Amino acid sequence: MTLRIHGDSTSGNCLKVRWTADYLKLSYDWIETSVAARQTREAVFLKLHPAGQVPLLILDDGRPLAQSNAIIAYLAEGSSLIPADAFERARMFEWMFWEQNSHEPYVAVARRLVRIDGVAISALDPILVERGRGALSRLDAGLGGRDFLVGSALSLADICLIAYTRVAGEGGLDLAPFPALRGWIARVEAAAGIGAA
Amino acid sequence: MTLRIHGDSTSGNCLKVRWTADYLKLSYDWIETSVAARQTREAVFLKLHPAGQVPLLILDDGRPLAQSNAIIAYLAEGSSLIPADAFERARMFEWMFWEQNSHEPYVAVARRLVRIDGVAISALDPILVERGRGALSRLDAGLGGRDFLVGSALSLADICLIAYTRVAGEGGLDLAPFPALRGWIARVEAAAGIGAA
Repeated sequence: MTLRIHGDSTSGNCLKVRWTADYLKLSYDWIETSVAARQTREAVFLKLHPAGQVPLLILDDGRPLAQSNAIIAYLAEGSSLIPADAFERARMFEWMFWEQNSHEPYVAVARRLVRIDGVAISALDPILVERGRGALSRLDAGLGGRDFLVGSALSLADICLIAYTRVAGEGGLDLAPFPALRGWIARVEAAAGIGAA
Repeated sequence: MTLRIHGDSTSGNCLKVRWTADYLKLSYDWIETSVAARQTREAVFLKLHPAGQVPLLILDDGRPLAQSNAIIAYLAEGSSLIPADAFERARMFEWMFWEQNSHEPYVAVARRLVRIDGVAISALDPILVERGRGALSRLDAGLGGRDFLVGSALSLADICLIAYTRVAGEGGLDLAPFPALRGWIARVEAAAGIGAA
């Protein structure tokens, strides 16, 4: 099976897919696709998937699959990254849906504005910053003293949520007030084999 | 098993859970919980789940599960609402994650601003309106002439995406330009046993 992954290496959503594939020792071709250079809006890319978003997985038979969290759930099916217990699996998806509606829109967006669009941290919308801090605080509390977000082992919830949390500081969202989060980031990086940011 | 569902009947995210539970003929207690009246921010509710959001499912043993799409995936496990084929299941999750990051933040928010907060449709942020229309257009194209979003039968993707699409007009997002979408709404309402909006 030769998988193709179209991704932008500066995007946490894309890195989730790379990390998951590497953890599972899957063989794949990575096709670097720049969002900033608008390569995802080019006709040749839109023909692959009309949403025009990375990451995009292409199966060996050509079928495309978008949405980072759907891709990692597909790749990891049957592996230890998805809890066997039904309720723990549901909790994993709870964190992954929460990431898309309550974490990524603030934590990832603040970082993109600063790092890609060149906005000064002091010029960020205070509401965006407040919501980003709120998401980090909620995640910090959600760990509740445990090593990983769900059960007692690494799962897709950790890989999903570490992607933008570990680089939150690049968007002015300081992790210093959250020691439990910083410990979790180091633990997940080690368990998942993720290199330095 | 006695399930409890805390939900606000004006919220599409909450109605997804009610529709799924009813379709599956599950027995449950519905605890009406008003977002507008800030009941989700009261201490008694925050003790159930620190995210302070509805819908919230409480299992018979007291364990809580938040996030509408995680809840319906949990409730529907093993049923016909989740495709047996791995790729179709992945597609279903693709649509559900897309709903949370690219549809709900515009289509549901426009409706909430108009219906709950009393904002005039003409006063809505043009960017919000444009993104809402873009999401409807993308969904319309995504149907690609098929009866349902994934495979050839009703799935959680349909129940998830119909929730705010069927009432998009309440937020000024007219469905008239999207005949395929309107046909799909009628078909999903009939298949899922959903009453008039």
